Amino acid sequence: MSLLVAITQWEPETWIERFRRLMPERRVFALGESFDAAEVQYVASWKHPAGSLAALPNLAVIFSLGAGVDHLMGDPCLPEVPVVRVVDEDLTNRMSEYVVLHCLMRLRQQRRYDEQQRQHVWIDDRFQPAAREVRVGLMGLGVLGQDAARKLAVLGFDVAGWSRSPKALDGLPSFSGEDGLEAFLSRTDILVCLLPLTAGTRGILNRSLFAQLAPAGRLGGPFLINAGRGGLQVEADILACLMDGTLKGATLDVFETEPLPPASPFWAHPAVTVTPHNAAMSDPESVGAQVVEQIRRFEAGEGLQNIVDTGLGY
Amino acid sequence: MSLLVAITQWEPETWIERFRRLMPERRVFALGESFDAAEVQYVASWKHPAGSLAALPNLAVIFSLGAGVDHLMGDPCLPEVPVVRVVDEDLTNRMSEYVVLHCLMRLRQQRRYDEQQRQHVWIDDRFQPAAREVRVGLMGLGVLGQDAARKLAVLGFDVAGWSRSPKALDGLPSFSGEDGLEAFLSRTDILVCLLPLTAGTRGILNRSLFAQLAPAGRLGGPFLINAGRGGLQVEADILACLMDGTLKGATLDVFETEPLPPASPFWAHPAVTVTPHNAAMSDPESVGAQVVEQIRRFEAGEGLQNIVDTGLGY
Repeated sequence: MSLLVAITQWEPETWIERFRRLMPERRVFALGESFDAAEVQYVASWKHPAGSLAALPNLAVIFSLGAGVDHLMGDPCLPEVPVVRVVDEDLTNRMSEYVVLHCLMRLRQQRRYDEQQRQHVWIDDRFQPAAREVRVGLMGLGVLGQDAARKLAVLGFDVAGWSRSPKALDGLPSFSGEDGLEAFLSRTDILVCLLPLTAGTRGILNRSLFAQLAPAGRLGGPFLINAGRGGLQVEADILACLMDGTLKGATLDVFETEPLPPASPFWAHPAVTVTPHNAAMSDPESVGAQVVEQIRRFEAGEGLQNIVDTGLGY
Repeated sequence: MSLLVAITQWEPETWIERFRRLMPERRVFALGESFDAAEVQYVASWKHPAGSLAALPNLAVIFSLGAGVDHLMGDPCLPEVPVVRVVDEDLTNRMSEYVVLHCLMRLRQQRRYDEQQRQHVWIDDRFQPAAREVRVGLMGLGVLGQDAARKLAVLGFDVAGWSRSPKALDGLPSFSGEDGLEAFLSRTDILVCLLPLTAGTRGILNRSLFAQLAPAGRLGGPFLINAGRGGLQVEADILACLMDGTLKGATLDVFETEPLPPASPFWAHPAVTVTPHNAAMSDPESVGAQVVEQIRRFEAGEGLQNIVDTGLGY
């Protein structure tokens, strides 16, 4: 049986080459190639065009190649087969690198020193807050959120987490559900969002939420770091909240429209750091091996891991 | 008995206020005030003027208020009493914040994305190295170096250390002495220097050392991070090595002359990050309490901790 690699936006060649190397005995097709639909048992997808998987009579499993499966949930013609998310140590580590980097940049006022460097000015600001005085709040406590929380705590940050359903967080304070949101936000100086994008989370990063963040923390105002999905954020609210001081700054890896249009006010905003949706890129070497291992498990009758709850959407 | 607070370059008021709060029963003088020299048993120093402690007949201990004691060792009239370095968890954490931040900025190519942001350009550079593919080498394995090494390893970096005398490094590879330097440098993509400044380390960060760093690592060339002392580095060599590609970039918190003169080429160099010698600032709250605890130990006959070997100079 064959694997169909259904990728848009990323270049599919590297992935196809990787899968061919890992499974030389199988046929690996790219979307757009000519192939026998009946032969396809597995799909490895990143943003396949809606409907493009609809006519595969023997399809058994769909693998998502990136963190997040909202790209799949948006396909109204998605075949009713198990959908498997990627859980990959390499991907997890990369997301934590990003989260720790950008929390430290805010803690250590790197943008202030960048500006001083541009102006050839030496001011040392002796009395800076220490990490233990800065409260980081992580929204989303899946594998990525848990790992980032643990590493932020090693650096000394005062970390808490929030998730839809209750989750233990390695001895760190953890809040959940609508009921826990206010308490969580009111103790948060840096809000890090790693939530999945679902009907329930779309637009959750809006003025009403920002207004509940800790107003008087050691950083002089709350910061937002969104490395989840652009659909989680209301960009007009972020801009307005930066203007009126509800937010002191934002680090955004994701946007309502990607690539971020050249005319977006985020690019030139002095309190905003823009990165091009690469907080945690899927590495074909590592993720490819995960997919092939799942196929092996499936065919050996050992059961798939990390199956998505399509009702919840993640 | 009294404490003399002998500080230049930092504002002494905060320190004096802190010591008075901690020891209301004692007299705390500032250098320059009028006081009875015979009354002074302790000195808390940060860059006191050479000779200014010479005529204190009952002086028993000198405490350094910052990491590093080179400012004391440079005083040819330093009284022959025990010199105590500060070992403070808060100071240690701050140095590790700085080291992890700047290693992550190099790993994640933050300067490239800063430049793209300035130009409103979205290029995501999918295939970045992971932390495990980047070798960080820490020179100096005292309390600061050990803590930074441990935290870098938690982030996933491939960490090794080097020190003058052999030191165990929590299961990480550790090199020592002249004999171990070549092997250490040849496996280093990011060199982090936290060495003390002594006669033996002055100018150690020079072309001959940079030329031994790993030339072909995943970052495309070696980076230098110096958060130790400016006297450790030969700035003309750093600039020349950046020019000819021996170094790919540098993050410098310390300089031969501080404040860094406005005309220094480091300010505007695109491959250099300048910070104003504040990687790890001494916090009067925390360090003040350490000094007072040492005074208590000394007077209770429990012995001073963290005494400097004035022969070695650290």
